[in-house]
Amino acid sequence: MKLLITGGAGFVGARLARTLLAQGKLAGRPIEQLVLADQVAAPADLLADARVQSRVSPLLAACEGLRDETFDGVFHLASAVSGECEADFDLGLRSNLDSTRALLDALRHRQGKGSAPTRLVFSSSIAVFGPDPAYAFPAQVADNTLPTPQTSYGTHKLICEQLVADYTRKGYIDGRAARLMTVTVRPGRPNGAASSFFSGIIREPLAGVESVCPVSPDVAHPVSSPQRTVQGLITVFEASREAFVGRTALNLPGLNVTVQQMLDALLAVAGPKVRALVRFERDERIAAIVANWPRGATAQRAAALGLQPEANFEDIIRQYIADSAATPAALQGMNT
Amino acid sequence: MKLLITGGAGFVGARLARTLLAQGKLAGRPIEQLVLADQVAAPADLLADARVQSRVSPLLAACEGLRDETFDGVFHLASAVSGECEADFDLGLRSNLDSTRALLDALRHRQGKGSAPTRLVFSSSIAVFGPDPAYAFPAQVADNTLPTPQTSYGTHKLICEQLVADYTRKGYIDGRAARLMTVTVRPGRPNGAASSFFSGIIREPLAGVESVCPVSPDVAHPVSSPQRTVQGLITVFEASREAFVGRTALNLPGLNVTVQQMLDALLAVAGPKVRALVRFERDERIAAIVANWPRGATAQRAAALGLQPEANFEDIIRQYIADSAATPAALQGMNT
Repeated sequence: MKLLITGGAGFVGARLARTLLAQGKLAGRPIEQLVLADQVAAPADLLADARVQSRVSPLLAACEGLRDETFDGVFHLASAVSGECEADFDLGLRSNLDSTRALLDALRHRQGKGSAPTRLVFSSSIAVFGPDPAYAFPAQVADNTLPTPQTSYGTHKLICEQLVADYTRKGYIDGRAARLMTVTVRPGRPNGAASSFFSGIIREPLAGVESVCPVSPDVAHPVSSPQRTVQGLITVFEASREAFVGRTALNLPGLNVTVQQMLDALLAVAGPKVRALVRFERDERIAAIVANWPRGATAQRAAALGLQPEANFEDIIRQYIADSAATPAALQGMNT
Repeated sequence: MKLLITGGAGFVGARLARTLLAQGKLAGRPIEQLVLADQVAAPADLLADARVQSRVSPLLAACEGLRDETFDGVFHLASAVSGECEADFDLGLRSNLDSTRALLDALRHRQGKGSAPTRLVFSSSIAVFGPDPAYAFPAQVADNTLPTPQTSYGTHKLICEQLVADYTRKGYIDGRAARLMTVTVRPGRPNGAASSFFSGIIREPLAGVESVCPVSPDVAHPVSSPQRTVQGLITVFEASREAFVGRTALNLPGLNVTVQQMLDALLAVAGPKVRALVRFERDERIAAIVANWPRGATAQRAAALGLQPEANFEDIIRQYIADSAATPAALQGMNT
């Protein structure tokens, strides 16, 4: 089969690509071609695989050409991130809304030419949820919690969930939207994202570098390892429509942890010297953003597909240490 | 003040225009200019008012020009309806999504030039709600019921709710989305809408004409008179941001009635001969569509603004009879 991953050179996209290439098949069918579309080239280890084709261009520009190309499956991960969307409103709309619609339309036109509806997994985000003064914000957001996004990024994700559902209802695609929890531990360097510290307070100390935690230790949040996140996307792809149930987006599993629990896990796994490299220094800007994020999540529909969060944060740290040993950071796809 | 009503020649738009002109002011300020934008000219009685300007063009084309024009308020009612969106997917996206975004962007660019954020009321719809197999569909949909639209029209309305909320969050507009219940009794002739019978089974018998009800008498649905609907839009416009509470769309009040109760009300108001003009003849296509509609609604946030549904369906019928006597049908704005 021939697959497309948009955002395929990004951290989650490249990891998904590696997992798919390693298992060699998807939904029981061998993977012959894996197209990684992104604004930057795919990491070198992926380019070295004969099945991989890396395409570098803005997604919006690429979609016109996709009308004449058949894919057996698409993972749509490409997205401008939260900070970019807040800084440049038009860029956010173009990258997230216009590009997604162009992609869905390209697939629709294939279907119009007699192809079966293309199966597509859309990576939505827990960012669709947020507190709204009109309603109580639940301690844990569920699959069917009312999304009231507090950022343009979350708004775009929610809108795309709805487009995917409607194109699916019409039979133009076979789409499924899955909401990713905050993925940690990410390799590489801190980025500008407000959530960057969720990786930084683990990654930096493990590398012998000091790290500053900008929020209080009682901040709670649902997180997921890269491995479980990728497994979630694959499981959602492989699910039958009946097993997915309906067309509404589902939450991928998240481990609900506090910052304190993350640091306790770091102490348990790496010892007091490493733990001591993290200090608290409140950043009001970041604290204000994080205060609008869910403090926990449930994932009932994902559980029905057999997906579970990690048992504890220690396992997430050990996974990161094992990954770092196996793959130099430079190959892990940190371009985005 | 200078106001814009998109869809201003339609049934609800023209009625809103008449109400605004009659009261002469909005939010305490005199109305000097009322621009009615639509694909057709406004009804003659409105054109005769010196304050009215009728602009005939597709909304999308008109929005570019709006960037250089200042409005003190906008009621955005223009929309391709449910049946059109199902029949022509691209037309629906263009008329409902692209046009709304162009309108919001035009207002944003005004704001960027130093104007205050324009107050805008967006007419969303109860069509954002529908049954999803993953979740129980409540007997009555509330303000915060999870919207899972079952039509492209409902999808577009939900997406536009989210755009209005995000443009408002950014300070580009002062937007409020209000979900209209099914408006009845509409004057004029039956249209292609699946909901047409909710007016037809009252309007036709009152005119001495036979009417066929395509669904069973126990079908229940929230409805609202034209007058209460228009009052709801005005009240939402006049509310302070604090009173509106948050940025999420609210339900306008609906009277939850069964078809049987509607016909009992017709009997009570107009007598057995009129009632006898309605017969039941099941239309499976319409029955299937209606089966996906909410059977009732609540409107807690609207109630906090002082908005209430009619006390009973008899009052809605009497209002229609009084309106028909006061205004020839040809002037009631039935173009859309």
